Amino acid sequence: MSIVLIAKNRDLDPLKRALEALDPHIEVEIWPGVKKKDRISFAVCWNHPAHVLDMYPNLKVISSLGAGVDHLLSDPSLKEHHRICRVVTPSLGEQLAFYVLNAILNYRFHTASYVDQQREGVWKKHDTVSVSDCHVGILGLGEMGLSVAKHIKNAGYEVSGWSRSPKTISGIQTFSSKELGDFLKQTQILVCCLPLTKETEGILDLDLFQQLKDPSYLINVGRGKHLVEEDLIYALNTGTLTGACLDVFINEPLPENHLFWNRPGIYITPHIASVTDPEEAAPVILENYKRMLSGMDLHNEVDRSRGY
Amino acid sequence: MSIVLIAKNRDLDPLKRALEALDPHIEVEIWPGVKKKDRISFAVCWNHPAHVLDMYPNLKVISSLGAGVDHLLSDPSLKEHHRICRVVTPSLGEQLAFYVLNAILNYRFHTASYVDQQREGVWKKHDTVSVSDCHVGILGLGEMGLSVAKHIKNAGYEVSGWSRSPKTISGIQTFSSKELGDFLKQTQILVCCLPLTKETEGILDLDLFQQLKDPSYLINVGRGKHLVEEDLIYALNTGTLTGACLDVFINEPLPENHLFWNRPGIYITPHIASVTDPEEAAPVILENYKRMLSGMDLHNEVDRSRGY
Repeated sequence: MSIVLIAKNRDLDPLKRALEALDPHIEVEIWPGVKKKDRISFAVCWNHPAHVLDMYPNLKVISSLGAGVDHLLSDPSLKEHHRICRVVTPSLGEQLAFYVLNAILNYRFHTASYVDQQREGVWKKHDTVSVSDCHVGILGLGEMGLSVAKHIKNAGYEVSGWSRSPKTISGIQTFSSKELGDFLKQTQILVCCLPLTKETEGILDLDLFQQLKDPSYLINVGRGKHLVEEDLIYALNTGTLTGACLDVFINEPLPENHLFWNRPGIYITPHIASVTDPEEAAPVILENYKRMLSGMDLHNEVDRSRGY
Repeated sequence: MSIVLIAKNRDLDPLKRALEALDPHIEVEIWPGVKKKDRISFAVCWNHPAHVLDMYPNLKVISSLGAGVDHLLSDPSLKEHHRICRVVTPSLGEQLAFYVLNAILNYRFHTASYVDQQREGVWKKHDTVSVSDCHVGILGLGEMGLSVAKHIKNAGYEVSGWSRSPKTISGIQTFSSKELGDFLKQTQILVCCLPLTKETEGILDLDLFQQLKDPSYLINVGRGKHLVEEDLIYALNTGTLTGACLDVFINEPLPENHLFWNRPGIYITPHIASVTDPEEAAPVILENYKRMLSGMDLHNEVDRSRGY
């Protein structure tokens, strides 16, 4: 039995070494140079190419290398008997929270404008957006959304959250299911931390933006497909939104001629909000690998019907 | 008796209105259109022109509109009997802390590089600087430095602080006076929150930068004269510092041809880290005005020999 690591444009050697450091007897191969395909029982994937999993006849478990699993569930190679899980490391939620806090502060302190001004040699002050105009609303209260909510609250912001099922979080007003409208009408900075499912695809649309409290700002750290791109442009053009920070896109890398590149008010980062650390991921992966071999339940196993 | 408000390039009407809202009988004039110069006993100043205070023969108290008083103490018009105080509002320290947190996060997440890349349509990831490489050291533990230290600690960073006289702050390792070297050798992100005095002028020099722990970064929210400008450029060129965020400069606005404008690694903001809110400042100013009229001690009075 062995593990295969599959990802495009990503150096997987550090993760292989971290796994081998934990257990010198473990067999780890890196796609595409896999020698013993029939020994593979466990695959760790991030944005793997279509049909690549067809090569492993004895595959039992497929683990996402990150918190998202939409890239796995949309794979037509997936068999009924394949079990899906994901890697949630302690620092992943913390990293995401720091990214979101940075996005909020960049909005408040006009960072992108000052960078542009500096390149042009312009000294011009802009009023800092006050904390009282920054009621933060977190869409999605899974492990990632919860971490973001707690960190942002702790940093001194009013925070509320919305999730499909009701949740109780100390110090944070929560809404569920049909209370989305109540949640939106008090939210000024909307942070999307949702998993991508059939229900959440395209949720960030003009109708939703119009329900936010002025002045409003969007931060998307969920998935590109949560956002209706033309609705964002329309909302910025009409002043419904003052701006947006986007880390995820329908197509990544963002295509060269995409209208987001030079749209004032949109700040883009290349999907860096939270990146799994190999040293932290290795023990999490190894634990699920051992659980699979022992016939035990997996940690962070995904309910395929629910989509996360 | 009346109050005069003096500042160049700043709209002082909101502060006048806020003072009059608190006390409809108060007399407030705005420089340069002062009608009854001999009635002025209290001046509120921010970067006032030299010799402008000579016009008020009955002036008793000069209050800085912000936390810094170096612009007052360097004024040759200052008389022996003039008492100096400053305005420290509750949100001033909070604003400064949010600015410093933003600067730390911009360093960690390469914000300026991503803004530049976006303008050029480039999708390229940079490794986020980990929290463990961000030991924050605060130079100066007055009201401003203390607020920054507490907020940054609360946000999840290791923080230590240095001040002239020994201080004890829960959860924060403190150093004083001659322990500067011990403080610097564990500091990676150095934040200057010092008052500008004869002792602190030019403190941010190459010798100091060389004592910091790699990788190191500078944030100056003190005064421009704390920094030896050519030493910063040299430290960046030689890799002693990885970068710097500067909100204050020897000459403001920063002169057109200044070498900081287009130096990679330097991020510039136009002195916006903390700006006094007129609504918050008005009661603080009024309280000291009443104290002066009653012959009482002033709040936040400045020791002219000490310089702050």
